[in-house]
Amino acid sequence: MNRTELKKLLTAFRDGGLSTDELLERLQALPFEDIGVARIDHHRELRQGTPEVVLGESKSADQLDAIVAAMTARGRNILVTRLNPEKAKRLQQRHGGDYDPVGRTFTLSGQAPPRPRYGPLLIVCAGTSDLPVAREAAITARMLDLEVEELVDVGVAGIHRLLAESSQLQRAAAIIVVAGMEGALPSVIGGLVAAPVIAVPTSVGYGTAFGGLAALLGMLNSCASGITVVNIDNGFGAAFAAARILRRNDE
Amino acid sequence: MNRTELKKLLTAFRDGGLSTDELLERLQALPFEDIGVARIDHHRELRQGTPEVVLGESKSADQLDAIVAAMTARGRNILVTRLNPEKAKRLQQRHGGDYDPVGRTFTLSGQAPPRPRYGPLLIVCAGTSDLPVAREAAITARMLDLEVEELVDVGVAGIHRLLAESSQLQRAAAIIVVAGMEGALPSVIGGLVAAPVIAVPTSVGYGTAFGGLAALLGMLNSCASGITVVNIDNGFGAAFAAARILRRNDE
Amino acid sequence: MNRTELKKLLTAFRDGGLSTDELLERLQALPFEDIGVARIDHHRELRQGTPEVVLGESKSADQLDAIVAAMTARGRNILVTRLNPEKAKRLQQRHGGDYDPVGRTFTLSGQAPPRPRYGPLLIVCAGTSDLPVAREAAITARMLDLEVEELVDVGVAGIHRLLAESSQLQRAAAIIVVAGMEGALPSVIGGLVAAPVIAVPTSVGYGTAFGGLAALLGMLNSCASGITVVNIDNGFGAAFAAARILRRNDE
Amino acid sequence: MNRTELKKLLTAFRDGGLSTDELLERLQALPFEDIGVARIDHHRELRQGTPEVVLGESKSADQLDAIVAAMTARGRNILVTRLNPEKAKRLQQRHGGDYDPVGRTFTLSGQAPPRPRYGPLLIVCAGTSDLPVAREAAITARMLDLEVEELVDVGVAGIHRLLAESSQLQRAAAIIVVAGMEGALPSVIGGLVAAPVIAVPTSVGYGTAFGGLAALLGMLNSCASGITVVNIDNGFGAAFAAARILRRNDE
Amino acid sequence: MNRTELKKLLTAFRDGGLSTDELLERLQALPFEDIGVARIDHHRELRQGTPEVVLGESKSADQLDAIVAAMTARGRNILVTRLNPEKAKRLQQRHGGDYDPVGRTFTLSGQAPPRPRYGPLLIVCAGTSDLPVAREAAITARMLDLEVEELVDVGVAGIHRLLAESSQLQRAAAIIVVAGMEGALPSVIGGLVAAPVIAVPTSVGYGTAFGGLAALLGMLNSCASGITVVNIDNGFGAAFAAARILRRNDE
Amino acid sequence: MNRTELKKLLTAFRDGGLSTDELLERLQALPFEDIGVARIDHHRELRQGTPEVVLGESKSADQLDAIVAAMTARGRNILVTRLNPEKAKRLQQRHGGDYDPVGRTFTLSGQAPPRPRYGPLLIVCAGTSDLPVAREAAITARMLDLEVEELVDVGVAGIHRLLAESSQLQRAAAIIVVAGMEGALPSVIGGLVAAPVIAVPTSVGYGTAFGGLAALLGMLNSCASGITVVNIDNGFGAAFAAARILRRNDE
Amino acid sequence: MNRTELKKLLTAFRDGGLSTDELLERLQALPFEDIGVARIDHHRELRQGTPEVVLGESKSADQLDAIVAAMTARGRNILVTRLNPEKAKRLQQRHGGDYDPVGRTFTLSGQAPPRPRYGPLLIVCAGTSDLPVAREAAITARMLDLEVEELVDVGVAGIHRLLAESSQLQRAAAIIVVAGMEGALPSVIGGLVAAPVIAVPTSVGYGTAFGGLAALLGMLNSCASGITVVNIDNGFGAAFAAARILRRNDE
Amino acid sequence: MNRTELKKLLTAFRDGGLSTDELLERLQALPFEDIGVARIDHHRELRQGTPEVVLGESKSADQLDAIVAAMTARGRNILVTRLNPEKAKRLQQRHGGDYDPVGRTFTLSGQAPPRPRYGPLLIVCAGTSDLPVAREAAITARMLDLEVEELVDVGVAGIHRLLAESSQLQRAAAIIVVAGMEGALPSVIGGLVAAPVIAVPTSVGYGTAFGGLAALLGMLNSCASGITVVNIDNGFGAAFAAARILRRNDE
Repeated sequence: MNRTELKKLLTAFRDGGLSTDELLERLQALPFEDIGVARIDHHRELRQGTPEVVLGESKSADQLDAIVAAMTARGRNILVTRLNPEKAKRLQQRHGGDYDPVGRTFTLSGQAPPRPRYGPLLIVCAGTSDLPVAREAAITARMLDLEVEELVDVGVAGIHRLLAESSQLQRAAAIIVVAGMEGALPSVIGGLVAAPVIAVPTSVGYGTAFGGLAALLGMLNSCASGITVVNIDNGFGAAFAAARILRRNDE
Repeated sequence: MNRTELKKLLTAFRDGGLSTDELLERLQALPFEDIGVARIDHHRELRQGTPEVVLGESKSADQLDAIVAAMTARGRNILVTRLNPEKAKRLQQRHGGDYDPVGRTFTLSGQAPPRPRYGPLLIVCAGTSDLPVAREAAITARMLDLEVEELVDVGVAGIHRLLAESSQLQRAAAIIVVAGMEGALPSVIGGLVAAPVIAVPTSVGYGTAFGGLAALLGMLNSCASGITVVNIDNGFGAAFAAARILRRNDE
Repeated sequence: MNRTELKKLLTAFRDGGLSTDELLERLQALPFEDIGVARIDHHRELRQGTPEVVLGESKSADQLDAIVAAMTARGRNILVTRLNPEKAKRLQQRHGGDYDPVGRTFTLSGQAPPRPRYGPLLIVCAGTSDLPVAREAAITARMLDLEVEELVDVGVAGIHRLLAESSQLQRAAAIIVVAGMEGALPSVIGGLVAAPVIAVPTSVGYGTAFGGLAALLGMLNSCASGITVVNIDNGFGAAFAAARILRRNDE
Repeated sequence: MNRTELKKLLTAFRDGGLSTDELLERLQALPFEDIGVARIDHHRELRQGTPEVVLGESKSADQLDAIVAAMTARGRNILVTRLNPEKAKRLQQRHGGDYDPVGRTFTLSGQAPPRPRYGPLLIVCAGTSDLPVAREAAITARMLDLEVEELVDVGVAGIHRLLAESSQLQRAAAIIVVAGMEGALPSVIGGLVAAPVIAVPTSVGYGTAFGGLAALLGMLNSCASGITVVNIDNGFGAAFAAARILRRNDE
Repeated sequence: MNRTELKKLLTAFRDGGLSTDELLERLQALPFEDIGVARIDHHRELRQGTPEVVLGESKSADQLDAIVAAMTARGRNILVTRLNPEKAKRLQQRHGGDYDPVGRTFTLSGQAPPRPRYGPLLIVCAGTSDLPVAREAAITARMLDLEVEELVDVGVAGIHRLLAESSQLQRAAAIIVVAGMEGALPSVIGGLVAAPVIAVPTSVGYGTAFGGLAALLGMLNSCASGITVVNIDNGFGAAFAAARILRRNDE
Repeated sequence: MNRTELKKLLTAFRDGGLSTDELLERLQALPFEDIGVARIDHHRELRQGTPEVVLGESKSADQLDAIVAAMTARGRNILVTRLNPEKAKRLQQRHGGDYDPVGRTFTLSGQAPPRPRYGPLLIVCAGTSDLPVAREAAITARMLDLEVEELVDVGVAGIHRLLAESSQLQRAAAIIVVAGMEGALPSVIGGLVAAPVIAVPTSVGYGTAFGGLAALLGMLNSCASGITVVNIDNGFGAAFAAARILRRNDE
Repeated sequence: MNRTELKKLLTAFRDGGLSTDELLERLQALPFEDIGVARIDHHRELRQGTPEVVLGESKSADQLDAIVAAMTARGRNILVTRLNPEKAKRLQQRHGGDYDPVGRTFTLSGQAPPRPRYGPLLIVCAGTSDLPVAREAAITARMLDLEVEELVDVGVAGIHRLLAESSQLQRAAAIIVVAGMEGALPSVIGGLVAAPVIAVPTSVGYGTAFGGLAALLGMLNSCASGITVVNIDNGFGAAFAAARILRRNDE
Repeated sequence: MNRTELKKLLTAFRDGGLSTDELLERLQALPFEDIGVARIDHHRELRQGTPEVVLGESKSADQLDAIVAAMTARGRNILVTRLNPEKAKRLQQRHGGDYDPVGRTFTLSGQAPPRPRYGPLLIVCAGTSDLPVAREAAITARMLDLEVEELVDVGVAGIHRLLAESSQLQRAAAIIVVAGMEGALPSVIGGLVAAPVIAVPTSVGYGTAFGGLAALLGMLNSCASGITVVNIDNGFGAAFAAARILRRNDE
């Protein structure tokens, strides 16, 4: 399309409809995306059905309503994260869609609903308190067309529970490991599998857990090679990273 | 193989060569790897030519010499990281091999030398001071059979230098971004590409750089979605993570 | 005026109306401002119409009411920062004036209303969550007679949006850059312009954002030369610093 | 010039020497600086005589020698910061120039030697231990064509020494305040003058000085409005910020 | 008295009323205070009228009521610190006494009401937001028989206000300096006077004030010699330290 | 003995050899250990052969020589920790004894050489870099009469190696777990055994290992119940804690 | 039992009821606990009456109700920690049991109620504000069959109160020391007794207490040898560690 | 004197030797010390024989030599702190004087040698490793005319050693307590005496001692009321604070 516009511009110039100076001015004013840099940011979404993502936390109900209305008009899939129940209720009344109170996410399918095309992505969760972050990751991943499996409550202090799921671990194309407290689970899993492992520290714990810092440091210093880490409680980011990995082949 | 051994054991039992109690004792004493858990840790190396990795920093020249001797005997590829020139010299005199003084790595090819089979992996480096970490990543990646490209000195304060390399960024199957100081480069690159981005903070900087902490925090809080992070100066880990991602299809 | 008073005192002394000891005593007791040290602190305000600034956060509605009453009596322009809506409502009922719920500021013009005389100052904002801090900066700057332009939602993960505003960046006499999370925007802008850049970290973010610490460290370690920084969320301070820079020529 | 090249390109296109597709490809490949974004980064230097700045710390003597040789060939003024005496000696033997052992800077004038054209900039130093940072700032500022004045050893514990220099403080167009330990000096000076104040924390002190962190926090929390801060020991950055402020009028 | 009891014991032993073993057992069981170590802890209070101090924060209204009742029965002066208005109201209804809502203290005089006998102690306060801590210090000091003077709102950014009070500073036998934000005031005062200076950092400020940490570090690194520091917001502790200093001569 | 002395004193008193006042004075001057408080500190050593422990790090060779000479004269077992080879050589030349260069300990047996009487204590070590701390623990434990077993290089990233040693883990009466980096090993072991587990973080690692802080936080936040922790690199302290546990029954 | 099941399996195999492949598959699928690794985790509870422990904080009233119902059905003793009064009320209405509002614990005895069989364990508490943590420790310990003694309000600033309890300290088989603020009490007690000492830092304090960090650091750096530490406010963990120590002999 | 000069000025004015404007100019230019503010800083030294204090650490041997020469010419007592042996040797060769290698201080008496006039000041030291800091405090105190007593190696883990020195503690007019590791000693001493207690944390310790931070936090959070604290390793500052306290009566 941009190419088309550019061609129009150039044709107008060649045909004398634009002076050299006028053309130069137009070229310099072109948004950079129009000449190739950010081309990847657009169009891909509609073609692939990836969602528009909105951070719900810092936006008012009015703002969210307007944003969702605009996107549904364009047929986009929508994912709102970190959304409280009150705002979610309002969005649902106006636009339908689903709200997950554990993961605190609102989702709405557009013209090209997400479907599981890449994966499988396994999301492992150390304890039940880590579930909200794991759920945010799972819902995000599904909106990004990943096939998701989940494994809950397999902390390192009961290592046999984890080992008993060895075959599921081996089958995964990528693994997100969600853990708070000492954050040791990614190290153990990283030693068991060859697949990419994305570690998500959670703010679960008290005292010297320091809101997830202990888990984060544990994961960054993992003795298992090649573990990567995202921000504390960032389930969304981990799923997005998994999508960067698993969707590669299809573009 | 283990399966074979198990079958022998069971046959002996069925044939009366082992009492029930003897069999039970044998089964309980079996290393866990023998019954499937850690099977992935072994054999894959010889088959694929992946290297044995040794952390050179905390080992004496004598210890390193013995380890390298043992591995060359088994025909393994060898990678020693964080190795100072003195120890490297001694290893080279005894075993040959290559030493890279910038990346501080020693490499030695065995029966199945590494060859570029997966990728391409692009390693981007914010400044020349970050080169040692980028080099460690590059050498590690090549030992893991990745095809590596490099892009140096494209910090965010001169954003046009980075944008001028847009096509190389788009071509990469995965990107490692190495940056110290404020660690902003992964955010910019993450916004430009859809591929996996692994960020490596370096200890480059002074004062409030706090030995790489500023860069690490910058990367963990990236406004670009789906950036993952490894420990400060951990070029090896970033390359290993890239190998987890890029080698997936081949196993 | 002080000079006048001093002259009166000295004339009285020379005329014998004061003994030497009496004069000495009077001189030693003079407030220091009267002999030149802090002269710059006063009078300039009325002459130039600069506002009296009140930190609203730690003061009661009664205290604020009394302060505003006193200042309006003297015809001063008034700026109250970090003011919640309840206290603002009371001030407005009694004294009129304007309250901005985003920037949480109350303003009231006196005998010499502020007017845009210096600048232009450009205030750039990485994301919509950073708006309250940017707004506080904008309102403060306008009360200090600066001409203010604003640029919103141009984070580094979508670098093309920023580059598209290149001419506005080049035109600014000074730029305040407001950003949370990794705080990378000032580095990019500092590389694009030659004007003074004042960076304001915000407490936007979660987990390892550590209430703005990640952004602050990013800004202090900027690879762009000559970026200066103020305290987290300190929009007021950034605007005041801009006024120190831009009002220079006029005094 | 770029404009000239663009015109050539467009003329060739209009004249049929380039097809539309060929032209499009050429346009997309143009470095971004060529279409206006980073135009300010170049040419200005030669015109104004600003120096090329090299961070000496992380470069070898060979690398520095090569860089200096290249720049002298282009007639540039050169500033090397954080340079130890050994490397400096070698540079001087080959290229002449001056080395300041306190500020640890090497300077060499090219075709357009720096001359004091903007200012005056006053550099205030709390104690003699802060001198190396103040000196780096002074030499950098002079290389950037600022007129520099210096005031040493006027810490807040002997406030009368500072107050005795009141007239010099009032005269300055901008002030850099260098202080370690508690870093209180910028607050006092910021209360005395209306000019821009750039605070530089130094790593002077021990124990809870935490390598300059105490001073940095003191400066960020200054009760004087509109103080801005740079990284610990960053005399270069403070001078560069001052140049952003003082050179404004001339561009 | 203890001496008397011991004598009784020994007399009983010499007279045969106790066997050697019985005496040994009794001696070993004696509370340590009875043999001289902690003698200073007791009796001094009634003799000097010093108050019993109760930390109100972590105690229930019932517990406080019981404690106050017990102490009034013994005629003691009472000081309850960090007490909220609800609990204070209940104490006042039952026992009378005074509650200060700014300093959050409850006081009740017993048989020997406090009277100003030592000092004068000057309590200096940087800003109005620091008043609650200064007030706690003042009330505590008065309960400890110190004569207290107060000086408010003399921050270092308006140094002339402080210098104008020079004579009051010189007159003080000891000075408590209460300051938040950068905590620079004790350095300036410590340079002006020879008397003991006790610095109290307050949690006033935001962002990098880190709840008083910036002020604390500033005070610990004061360039004025011989400044001592207490915990953040610890007005009580500063007053108690002043009493240790000023009451010395009288014991 | 003290009892004997006390009896002599009391007999002298009863017999009139001491006046009441003289006796009182003598009693008050008695070291507190003599009347029962610290009785446990002494005598037990000779009876049980426990060593005198000397921290070698901060003492000169002369001081150490004198201390060892004094203790050998009394027939004591001696343990010097954190001793460098130079000082050790001198001690050995004068006094004989053994020096362990890995654990950096010097030991010398006296009249009652240590012998393995309590235990077994198992010391588990995550990696070879953690060996110096594990060795210090082992040597200390043996000097305290514990029977010691050792298990090396069983990090959590290769969990099967640890699980293969299950029976040795189950047999131990107490376990010391030494680990750096993420410090996850104690959590896994704590989940496998019911015995006391003492975790020792080591300073092994780089970057965000922060000199052992990451491991320490991991251990304090262990999801295995009832793990206790000692200071970073404190092998001595862990062994001493084990001795407090295992020697209990024998006193 | 597992042994029995295994025998059945093997008998079926020998008798031809299972093929070799079928048996292999069954063996590999066996939960690891069944072949000896985690055997200690189970059965012991019913035999010894140890409780099932539930962390109440992050669970809803519904979830807790279901868990308690399930466990009472199996006759288990139950301990719920960190439970607020509202949830406790609901549990009590449905299941009976006891709630301690200070320690915030709910307990319910099953078929084998806890009884004091090991110890005595002494729990020492520095101040009344530390009581909730000490109470959690006491109740946990009693549920684990320990005999518990308590000693309250014996802080180091009144050392004679502690020394007066010397005999109780000497009698204890293990001691838990709970302290906030500077956390010095374990050092003093560790110097007085030979028994195991487990230190629990509490979040009591303000300002630089940093939520228990000051106490934690004090305990980790104790000058008394062999003190071990658990997480801040972790009364449960300390009691569990004591049980690991004291129950040893009985298994 | 200043008064004299002022009188001269005023007389000249009254006599017509100065115009009003000339006088005003002269008055405004007067150093502030001349009109009373900082009068206390001067003259007192010669009258009382207090030393000139020089921080030796950051000065060259040449600089120190020049400073000492200048001060001996004026008959001043001299104290140089933090001086290494090499520089000390040079000072002694030129000027005589004494060097203490433990406290790292150089002292030289002038016309009015220090003599013990105030006190006694007791300096208590937890362990032998803390001696350098205690020694710096002792030598500083003696140069400030304080009478000094010392008590070494009385850490809280052997509380009886401290209690045995009760009478010396009671006798002191002020106490400096020097301690590293957990820094608990000031709390115990503060509970035993009524005199002022100044706590000095030292950098003794390892791991979580964090270079004295643990001790500092322990002291700031002391449960003994009225303890004040100085910077880590700041023996000089503690002695100076003691002089502020003890010299009070004599001025």
